[in-house]
Amino acid sequence: MAKKEEEVKLLGFWGSPFSRRVEMALKLKGVPYEYLEQDIVDKSPLLLQLNPVYKKVPVLVHNGKVLAESHLILEYIDQTWKNNPILPQDPYEKAMAFFWAKFVDEQVGPGFFSVVKAEKGIEVAIEEAREHIMFLEKEITGKDFFGGETIGFLDMVAGSMIPFCVARGWEGIGVDMIPEEIFPELNRWIKNLLEIEIVVECIPDREKHIEHVMKIVERIKSA
Amino acid sequence: MAKKEEEVKLLGFWGSPFSRRVEMALKLKGVPYEYLEQDIVDKSPLLLQLNPVYKKVPVLVHNGKVLAESHLILEYIDQTWKNNPILPQDPYEKAMAFFWAKFVDEQVGPGFFSVVKAEKGIEVAIEEAREHIMFLEKEITGKDFFGGETIGFLDMVAGSMIPFCVARGWEGIGVDMIPEEIFPELNRWIKNLLEIEIVVECIPDREKHIEHVMKIVERIKSA
Repeated sequence: MAKKEEEVKLLGFWGSPFSRRVEMALKLKGVPYEYLEQDIVDKSPLLLQLNPVYKKVPVLVHNGKVLAESHLILEYIDQTWKNNPILPQDPYEKAMAFFWAKFVDEQVGPGFFSVVKAEKGIEVAIEEAREHIMFLEKEITGKDFFGGETIGFLDMVAGSMIPFCVARGWEGIGVDMIPEEIFPELNRWIKNLLEIEIVVECIPDREKHIEHVMKIVERIKSA
Repeated sequence: MAKKEEEVKLLGFWGSPFSRRVEMALKLKGVPYEYLEQDIVDKSPLLLQLNPVYKKVPVLVHNGKVLAESHLILEYIDQTWKNNPILPQDPYEKAMAFFWAKFVDEQVGPGFFSVVKAEKGIEVAIEEAREHIMFLEKEITGKDFFGGETIGFLDMVAGSMIPFCVARGWEGIGVDMIPEEIFPELNRWIKNLLEIEIVVECIPDREKHIEHVMKIVERIKSA
């Protein structure tokens, strides 16, 4: 738990998986925080000042220390508030959690937008996206969560990104990206996630989210 | 020091800053390793088998455990062999080291190749590259190394990438990217690096390296 004198602020955006996962971690640790919703188009002077390099959410401010980049923020939170650990202690398991988290954000996340560019057909794009997601289907097989028996780092990263962000983008163009027939293990994992209150609190409204992602698609198309 | 029964193998490529930095870390820790030079065009079955996701070097194999991605490998090495620590203990300082390492690899590294695409003029490309590098000039000011008084994680990441890789790319097209007048602190840091034997051992041959990078440029141009 945070000590009384501690100041924790989070600059975030409701539709960003990167800031939603940080909220999950703070909630899991029981750290009280002030949430500052950001306009990601017309950026606030505070955001520009705190993250001059990337100018992006999330930004965590803890007692004047400023942190950006969600994986690093999650690890910092885990090391600063030790209750309910989210990262494995074992160096190899920890490296693997980070490996798959990077894969989720760099391969699975942007995968959806590749379909927009329309250089490849939709069928090819679906095929490629599912090949990526299949790596994670294998990782979760036989486990309740990526972290084992309880929610952990990779669950927060993949949970915020795949079912409640990427899948919604695909849903917006009429594709069920992770059907139960192809991904039974991931669907089981999603059900497990949905039983955790702090996860449910961090899931963006479905209709509003699809609309948001479709606006990004339109922006990319017309660029 | 590695115990006698330990097996440490590194799949690398002489011209890759990503594998060179792993060699630096292993040498600093005094870990004996078997080095397996890879052909990065005609990839070996072993590389494809060990890193099926990215199919890239470096890959570290430690007693049968397989690790990819250089930042993760460096942290794993630091946690496995505790002598000569390369990462800060303090959670915030550690997050900052990773933050700048990511910046080096995602912004400064690819920055050079942006000039090849010729969508912007060379002058604009030089200006942008120097704006990126200026963030690091500020970080190193007043310090011998990014890690403080001795070589650490960010020195290995930035050292393998900037002076002995990116700067050589620019040199190949006739540009001195980090002149002393603009970057006095980074030039001081480079001199400090060159006094460390394990760094010097990991610097690729200059002529051969420039030739290698120019071949990549030609490949990108003709793609």
